[in-house]
Amino acid sequence: MHEQAVRSAVRRPRMTPDRASELLDVTLDILREVGYGSLSMDLIASRGRCSKATIYRQWGSKAQMVAAAVAALRPADSVGGDAGSLRGDLLLLFEQLGSRADKDTTMIAALHHALLTDAKLAEAFRVSMLEPAREELAGIVERAMRRQELPDRPGAAQFLPSLVWSALVARPFFEGLTADADYLEQFVDDVILPALQHS
Amino acid sequence: MHEQAVRSAVRRPRMTPDRASELLDVTLDILREVGYGSLSMDLIASRGRCSKATIYRQWGSKAQMVAAAVAALRPADSVGGDAGSLRGDLLLLFEQLGSRADKDTTMIAALHHALLTDAKLAEAFRVSMLEPAREELAGIVERAMRRQELPDRPGAAQFLPSLVWSALVARPFFEGLTADADYLEQFVDDVILPALQHS
Repeated sequence: MHEQAVRSAVRRPRMTPDRASELLDVTLDILREVGYGSLSMDLIASRGRCSKATIYRQWGSKAQMVAAAVAALRPADSVGGDAGSLRGDLLLLFEQLGSRADKDTTMIAALHHALLTDAKLAEAFRVSMLEPAREELAGIVERAMRRQELPDRPGAAQFLPSLVWSALVARPFFEGLTADADYLEQFVDDVILPALQHS
Repeated sequence: MHEQAVRSAVRRPRMTPDRASELLDVTLDILREVGYGSLSMDLIASRGRCSKATIYRQWGSKAQMVAAAVAALRPADSVGGDAGSLRGDLLLLFEQLGSRADKDTTMIAALHHALLTDAKLAEAFRVSMLEPAREELAGIVERAMRRQELPDRPGAAQFLPSLVWSALVARPFFEGLTADADYLEQFVDDVILPALQHS
């Protein structure tokens, strides 16, 4: 099997990076629409206008293709920034995350069950979605400590990624409503700041 | 179609309630294992040792069958209780919810995407899983106000269901770890109590 794959890679030109990235975007679009379980290579091939053989040659399996699509995402790299205060930093982060919350929430929902059962997919998701967010949040706490807005590393800091996630994901889940700017600002003022400031 | 359904219901005996409840349990088991998208009536029929026709006659569609299975759950009816203090009430609730967190977390993950797109399923889930939990949490806040542990209805009270959900669901999602008793106790002390007590 392996030798055959090598020979076929030699015989045919590899997919261009642009084309590969296009097919990964198609994969994410379908994923958001139908969820992981109903996503099929047939759907990807038909929407992406290519053969299933091409897709299997490039990515090997549905699980690997979805992991590659998730790994290609780096949304949290472009968020965050120093707004001059702890509250300002949190609101800025939520403003940026909130603006694409619908897309991210649907993708998280689509992947949720698969992430609990597929370790490779979970790893890809952790590296591309969670770690950048975790680092950004650690930076926000660091800056607040330097500004002496927080006296010491607060116990609640370890829960910040969960809290941010909860703010964005829980409302659509519980109420069928998007977490809008007012909701997120209240969450910052009533939950995150009191939790961080307590120690 | 409707007349035919009526005639066939007359011709054949209805399923006994015990048998129906058994098949709904089978549905939830498969749901937790494979997720909503990969759950099929074939799988339910084969695991439940009955014909697909029987299932369709009883529930009409996969979506309706899953909604019925979810509606039959009333787990939060049996949780909660007055432990004498706000902290005690929250720890008691988490102890009860935590003991079956694996099962609930997997089911929530399996349903997450479908809940965003299927209004009837979302309604069944809201009525059987969310509303009882919301009422229990409102009761905890009421009791704390009567005990004068909380001065007034705190702004964070509206976020309590999201926070409880976040504590239970976020850790498996982020770290692949179950939210154990230590983790939940820290979450109560570092996040929920400071948020409620602030006003």
